Amino acid sequence: MSAIRQTTSKSLMLFSGRAYPELTAEIAGHLGVTPTPTAAYEFANGELFVRFEESVRGCDAFVVQSHTAPINTWLMEQLIMVDALKRASAKRITVVAPFFPYARQDKKHRGREPISARLVADMFKTAGADRLMTVDLHTAQIQGFFDGPVDHLFALELLVGHVKERWGDRDITVVSPDSGRVRVSERWTDALGGVPLAFIHKTRDPMRPNEVKANRVVGNVEGRVCILVDDMIDTGGTIVKAAETLFEAGASDVIVCATHGVLSGPAVDRLKNSQVSEVIVTNTLPIEPARLFDKLTVLSIAPLLARAIKEVFEDGSVTSLFGGAS
Amino acid sequence: MSAIRQTTSKSLMLFSGRAYPELTAEIAGHLGVTPTPTAAYEFANGELFVRFEESVRGCDAFVVQSHTAPINTWLMEQLIMVDALKRASAKRITVVAPFFPYARQDKKHRGREPISARLVADMFKTAGADRLMTVDLHTAQIQGFFDGPVDHLFALELLVGHVKERWGDRDITVVSPDSGRVRVSERWTDALGGVPLAFIHKTRDPMRPNEVKANRVVGNVEGRVCILVDDMIDTGGTIVKAAETLFEAGASDVIVCATHGVLSGPAVDRLKNSQVSEVIVTNTLPIEPARLFDKLTVLSIAPLLARAIKEVFEDGSVTSLFGGAS
Amino acid sequence: MSAIRQTTSKSLMLFSGRAYPELTAEIAGHLGVTPTPTAAYEFANGELFVRFEESVRGCDAFVVQSHTAPINTWLMEQLIMVDALKRASAKRITVVAPFFPYARQDKKHRGREPISARLVADMFKTAGADRLMTVDLHTAQIQGFFDGPVDHLFALELLVGHVKERWGDRDITVVSPDSGRVRVSERWTDALGGVPLAFIHKTRDPMRPNEVKANRVVGNVEGRVCILVDDMIDTGGTIVKAAETLFEAGASDVIVCATHGVLSGPAVDRLKNSQVSEVIVTNTLPIEPARLFDKLTVLSIAPLLARAIKEVFEDGSVTSLFGGAS
Amino acid sequence: MSAIRQTTSKSLMLFSGRAYPELTAEIAGHLGVTPTPTAAYEFANGELFVRFEESVRGCDAFVVQSHTAPINTWLMEQLIMVDALKRASAKRITVVAPFFPYARQDKKHRGREPISARLVADMFKTAGADRLMTVDLHTAQIQGFFDGPVDHLFALELLVGHVKERWGDRDITVVSPDSGRVRVSERWTDALGGVPLAFIHKTRDPMRPNEVKANRVVGNVEGRVCILVDDMIDTGGTIVKAAETLFEAGASDVIVCATHGVLSGPAVDRLKNSQVSEVIVTNTLPIEPARLFDKLTVLSIAPLLARAIKEVFEDGSVTSLFGGAS
Amino acid sequence: MSAIRQTTSKSLMLFSGRAYPELTAEIAGHLGVTPTPTAAYEFANGELFVRFEESVRGCDAFVVQSHTAPINTWLMEQLIMVDALKRASAKRITVVAPFFPYARQDKKHRGREPISARLVADMFKTAGADRLMTVDLHTAQIQGFFDGPVDHLFALELLVGHVKERWGDRDITVVSPDSGRVRVSERWTDALGGVPLAFIHKTRDPMRPNEVKANRVVGNVEGRVCILVDDMIDTGGTIVKAAETLFEAGASDVIVCATHGVLSGPAVDRLKNSQVSEVIVTNTLPIEPARLFDKLTVLSIAPLLARAIKEVFEDGSVTSLFGGAS
Amino acid sequence: MSAIRQTTSKSLMLFSGRAYPELTAEIAGHLGVTPTPTAAYEFANGELFVRFEESVRGCDAFVVQSHTAPINTWLMEQLIMVDALKRASAKRITVVAPFFPYARQDKKHRGREPISARLVADMFKTAGADRLMTVDLHTAQIQGFFDGPVDHLFALELLVGHVKERWGDRDITVVSPDSGRVRVSERWTDALGGVPLAFIHKTRDPMRPNEVKANRVVGNVEGRVCILVDDMIDTGGTIVKAAETLFEAGASDVIVCATHGVLSGPAVDRLKNSQVSEVIVTNTLPIEPARLFDKLTVLSIAPLLARAIKEVFEDGSVTSLFGGAS
Repeated sequence: MSAIRQTTSKSLMLFSGRAYPELTAEIAGHLGVTPTPTAAYEFANGELFVRFEESVRGCDAFVVQSHTAPINTWLMEQLIMVDALKRASAKRITVVAPFFPYARQDKKHRGREPISARLVADMFKTAGADRLMTVDLHTAQIQGFFDGPVDHLFALELLVGHVKERWGDRDITVVSPDSGRVRVSERWTDALGGVPLAFIHKTRDPMRPNEVKANRVVGNVEGRVCILVDDMIDTGGTIVKAAETLFEAGASDVIVCATHGVLSGPAVDRLKNSQVSEVIVTNTLPIEPARLFDKLTVLSIAPLLARAIKEVFEDGSVTSLFGGAS
Repeated sequence: MSAIRQTTSKSLMLFSGRAYPELTAEIAGHLGVTPTPTAAYEFANGELFVRFEESVRGCDAFVVQSHTAPINTWLMEQLIMVDALKRASAKRITVVAPFFPYARQDKKHRGREPISARLVADMFKTAGADRLMTVDLHTAQIQGFFDGPVDHLFALELLVGHVKERWGDRDITVVSPDSGRVRVSERWTDALGGVPLAFIHKTRDPMRPNEVKANRVVGNVEGRVCILVDDMIDTGGTIVKAAETLFEAGASDVIVCATHGVLSGPAVDRLKNSQVSEVIVTNTLPIEPARLFDKLTVLSIAPLLARAIKEVFEDGSVTSLFGGAS
Repeated sequence: MSAIRQTTSKSLMLFSGRAYPELTAEIAGHLGVTPTPTAAYEFANGELFVRFEESVRGCDAFVVQSHTAPINTWLMEQLIMVDALKRASAKRITVVAPFFPYARQDKKHRGREPISARLVADMFKTAGADRLMTVDLHTAQIQGFFDGPVDHLFALELLVGHVKERWGDRDITVVSPDSGRVRVSERWTDALGGVPLAFIHKTRDPMRPNEVKANRVVGNVEGRVCILVDDMIDTGGTIVKAAETLFEAGASDVIVCATHGVLSGPAVDRLKNSQVSEVIVTNTLPIEPARLFDKLTVLSIAPLLARAIKEVFEDGSVTSLFGGAS
Repeated sequence: MSAIRQTTSKSLMLFSGRAYPELTAEIAGHLGVTPTPTAAYEFANGELFVRFEESVRGCDAFVVQSHTAPINTWLMEQLIMVDALKRASAKRITVVAPFFPYARQDKKHRGREPISARLVADMFKTAGADRLMTVDLHTAQIQGFFDGPVDHLFALELLVGHVKERWGDRDITVVSPDSGRVRVSERWTDALGGVPLAFIHKTRDPMRPNEVKANRVVGNVEGRVCILVDDMIDTGGTIVKAAETLFEAGASDVIVCATHGVLSGPAVDRLKNSQVSEVIVTNTLPIEPARLFDKLTVLSIAPLLARAIKEVFEDGSVTSLFGGAS
Repeated sequence: MSAIRQTTSKSLMLFSGRAYPELTAEIAGHLGVTPTPTAAYEFANGELFVRFEESVRGCDAFVVQSHTAPINTWLMEQLIMVDALKRASAKRITVVAPFFPYARQDKKHRGREPISARLVADMFKTAGADRLMTVDLHTAQIQGFFDGPVDHLFALELLVGHVKERWGDRDITVVSPDSGRVRVSERWTDALGGVPLAFIHKTRDPMRPNEVKANRVVGNVEGRVCILVDDMIDTGGTIVKAAETLFEAGASDVIVCATHGVLSGPAVDRLKNSQVSEVIVTNTLPIEPARLFDKLTVLSIAPLLARAIKEVFEDGSVTSLFGGAS
Repeated sequence: MSAIRQTTSKSLMLFSGRAYPELTAEIAGHLGVTPTPTAAYEFANGELFVRFEESVRGCDAFVVQSHTAPINTWLMEQLIMVDALKRASAKRITVVAPFFPYARQDKKHRGREPISARLVADMFKTAGADRLMTVDLHTAQIQGFFDGPVDHLFALELLVGHVKERWGDRDITVVSPDSGRVRVSERWTDALGGVPLAFIHKTRDPMRPNEVKANRVVGNVEGRVCILVDDMIDTGGTIVKAAETLFEAGASDVIVCATHGVLSGPAVDRLKNSQVSEVIVTNTLPIEPARLFDKLTVLSIAPLLARAIKEVFEDGSVTSLFGGAS
């Protein structure tokens, strides 16, 4: 007999970086698996080490990392995990990055800048990733930076569901905090049944392109509940400024919605002290308990990620589940 | 003596696809060169053939093609030219694509779609291109699709210059024809000295995402000259519809501005028969003489391309020349 | 439990470009499948769009396109389909190109020419193709242009079977229309049981290498049925000229056989009006009903392609089925 | 129905180069398979030819070659086998190279040298290898030269087992023949239960870095059985010289242990005529019967390779079996 | 000052493998350079070592090797030289392989065969070669196997020049020894001013495709001087058999012409003892003095290679020099 | 005129990461250049941004970064700088990493570990680096991890020079702190004129391979000045433990020498409080002024790096300058 023949099976294994293990645990719970035991630590000089404590040979690996600060450390950790999986003969490796790092540097704004989002996509490929799963990319074009399949999930339904429940009986206007995100806000108006749309127009002096001269509201917000929609809240500066502009323009309430609650530095104080009524984010990024505040609502992204991972593993359709997102 | 030593020199050579040789000729005139004599024709079954009639060994090659219809033919011709240059030992090959083909398919709008703009960028690389030069990409993120330097030029200054001269004494509002291009329009408001900004809000039924239910103007256009700004005019349907919506909202005049005058199918008739006062485009794409019409102004992009090519050849700074575009 | 384990299955899915859907339908019929529903159309400026209307995740995809005119459009469509399959997580992608485009440009005939057949092979790879299936390559070396498995099928048995049935009782000489295809004709002489072989010798002036001075028959054709054998008939010029030369040399009948009926431009008229008794081709390329003519016999290549696809899917041996062709 | 669905199976196939078919046969015996029938021969000018005589489509291929002299021929044969497997649609290809060729050229010792071990690793990749299996690399860093999984097996347990049985009741010192291999010898001391360690210190004139001025034993060897440990014995010059130095330093017996018995040129005579008591190697490389000698013990590596191949095929853990080696 | 600026120069360096240093020396003489001093030797187990004894940083390197037996050794030596040049910062590396190794395995003749010529081209690329220079490839399509520029030179003019001088006053027929090389012979008929063409038709039983049943001359050879033309003479079996067939068919003289005198095994005896009047080859491969014989004429290819190297270095046109060869 | 011809020049530009600008400044001083002005900062969430403030088109770029803590941040910054240079058309990019990050993870010590040093080398390549320059790699094999030229410099001469001056009149033994670095220590013994060599033998229980049972000195150290030699001092644990073992074995003095003064966490206290007489390192990594201590000697590596950069730029020989290191 010149060959050994066997029927084949496949196995899903979940791996968790150390940035936000609670999220992976929640995903694992939905899937009914346990994250693979992994030894991971830093050497004294900051170099990272990772080793898996179970055989991963032939598995369908999903490597979850949440790219919060220190972001370069967590990115490197995930790359090292992918390298270790590749060298240990995992069959397929999917990087799960709910918040895609460096997504804002997705083009050269001026000459002699990097395109760091492409660099990150290439680094995942170089390390050995076959696929990518992510939520609400800063711009959808980043899908095209990765040379392979990208499962791009949307938190829209989750966020809109909450807004409808809580604010659905009021007169709503969806507002984009700047001119670059009006398209995304338009999707919200449709999901909210055709409510009006507005945005904040920033004027600049062409000689000083990085300084905003003035903020003007374009669209009708007077006496309305304004839903300020963005993909992420970082320091909160732009969004709080936008809220103030809306109140000046007569808004009755301002609600802030974003998929990614980066909430760096002064963000929490700014939002807490603002007139904003509610801040709604998902947990693609961890928020320390000490930074939680009353007006903040955090919705869990884990069920969505778990369902997507399951469909990918079983060759089901992610598109059919998540409203058209592949 | 174990080596022959020589001082080195470099030579710029210009190559023209057959889609729009007049543009290359104009660029060549500005540079003071002659496009390299090239034999190019189609076989009876449509396969293309190209051969250069002068030695190209060691040259710094710039391959200009204008991606007009039949667009796949001209794309393939440019790829074949690049392949021939690579195999004939050109030292460096820059693809000059003033209108980047398939730029609109820069992401998966829904599942199971291609990202054709990335495919095109990869095909240029595969054929042997080292660099890319292009004008006003549909989205700037496409720069990141190419694994190498991209000289991304802007026609903004050229177009704004003309608008200022002709309409500068009127009350102007810049208008984005849809929610996805408000950011670009915002740049126009700055270049025009801080004029107001508006956009057309399209509402859709979430169950029928491809059908627009209604167009609403957001922003103040009443009694004003509206400059409708887009990167390209294809069939003109969207833009003429937008113009109508603006007139309904009280606009006094509508001017249409776009870098790329694709002007497919019914575009010319639609624009001619519309109430639009002027249509301003550049010649990144050819327009047949028979399709020219009174209201159409075509500005030449050749001086900009010639200057950029010269800077690239001489290792000068493209950034410094073109207002920050690298 | 740290992993989910499942037995695996695989699924064959067939995809059809729009060049010649009837061929895919015929293959599908033999396989007992339906081509995957696909939305495909052109934008007004000629850019193509493709979207699959069913989940393709994890499938073993066979993408059939027939590279007829407009050949660059159909090539680009197939590349875009492959890109979409790659990004939608198809497990394995086989390009089925019964007529390999640009096969004649398989070398530099002179300096500064492209090798377009290699470029096409690389473009398939770049788009995401894992494998290639094709019929009667212009030269077998093109297999080596693709970095991966190539299933190279032969129509010889199909064509010879028909010739034997119809002309088997006559005195046959196999004739190569030029010096470059004598080897292929030799295979025909063996398949026809050892009949004689001849070819047309073209003489050229070394100073004018592209102009033929004279055609001479080398070999014995007097009073015999000459089977003129080529891989393709394009404009028919060479082949009709060859037939005339054969009649001048005393041939009693001339039969023209080719795998690929390109039949561009004047081909149909030339063949119809010639003294050729029968023209035999397969349907690797579509022939419009209006261009069919009495002397033309079209044999279907679909059964061969269907069997090969089935063997590839089931990991059977293609070699064993098709007379040694892997 | 738009797809054909099937459960999948996988099949292990074993392929043998012609350098040492007896080793493959032994591995095959342990696995219960037959090496795949293969036609392989040299053309008169030394070019190699290989063809597999059974379908290999979809198989999990393990290609065993033993890199003995003429080493470049056997390396090329293995590369050609991998190329043929790739083009014949093998699903996964593992190169089994028990002795990794060119492992000693794993760095530039001086300027303008190659790193041939990296070149070999890249050549395996280029030909189409997905994975590598090898035994006792000259330096473990060579794992990192291959862009993919490497199963690095150790003969330590096998060799130590024999030493313990035969010499375990004596006072042992493990000796490294040079300063570069002390780390490996240290592993032996642990495996032998904590015996002492010594090494041969070679002094050189910095002006003549390739000439050894003197050999000094560092460590205690007087009256002890010295186990001289190396990864390979090539010409035996270094090792016999080391043995002499040890006897001069008072060693009672010297045992030579190495995984790879290269035994080139004068090696057999040198060892036979030396005072060394036993020479222990494995059969990663063939030793002609005529070159066997009394003091030589050859242990079979086949069981280890067979177990590793089985684990790889079945997605088991190689780590767990072989004492920590992945 | 933020940069150091310098004018640049370039230097041509010539490197010689050990297979046929006399050829490199002859090329070097024509160029007026000395081959770079290089240490090269074999370790006892056959592994090769190479080190350059002068700095090669920034040079334009031409690495000449003649692929004679032991062919795998010389191929590996050339690859190692290229690797060493790449790692030592050579600016550009051209592999000069006057006889391209494994050129005959340029396609799969049957299933499960390698395409070794593509593998060799890829190995050159992997090692670091930027360009390739070669003479009279077995098939011109091999140019397309290399992903970069190939300078494909022809010995036709050199060989024809000699034939004209010596046999030009006789009645010549050019003869192809088999059906696969008639095209090349046709080029000879043109170069010889339009002489007749013939070829040897081999018949085979389709059940036993590797056994020739009979040789028949097709074309007129009676009373004529037959110039048998091939790219290489390996064992001489085919060519001597062809000569016999020609004499049987009435040839008055037979002259054998080939670019590559492989002359393996029985070749010399076969040719010496045959009725062939003259055997003409070039020195792309070395012929040991002891194997030279009276009827053998060896023409030097060195002037052609030297001129091509000079043109490549100086960015001149190789096409213009060598009759259309790139 | 169909081409513009110019003589070419080249320009060296130096770029500095923010980890240790003082080192780059020192190198720049030796070269007589100014580091290119660069804007670099962190966003609030830790994402890095870099932009060059002068044109870099066509330059020969040297990008210096010192990989100290936070090491992943500085690694990412250097990658982003390389990406920005690539996209801004730098002609050649050399990464200067005096301390190569993750060098210790140069192999899989056990199964399912990464080979992070290879990952880092690949990431440099992916970002766009053409070349690498580094000092005293943890193992020289890491050169082979990078697919391109590596300038591997040695601090040996610098360190030995200082030792000779200060301790040259004493009886010296060179000691390797563990079995894996005896080879490097041997080079020191030669450089110090043939002094004795010793090392610390660590014994381990095979069941607990990560725990050292005992340290034993092998070699003669009694009454001698011991030069403990390592490539880096990280936490100082191993080295201080080794020093203690040496004093227990009778050493009169212990001097610690290492190229890379990582000096993490407790290192400074451990060394200060130890009996070690002098600690000698270079400044490949910065040491905060507050962490300097009396016994610490820091030698500058800048002259060596400056000389190497100059030679690389001018295509001189690095080998000739630095004692054989390429």
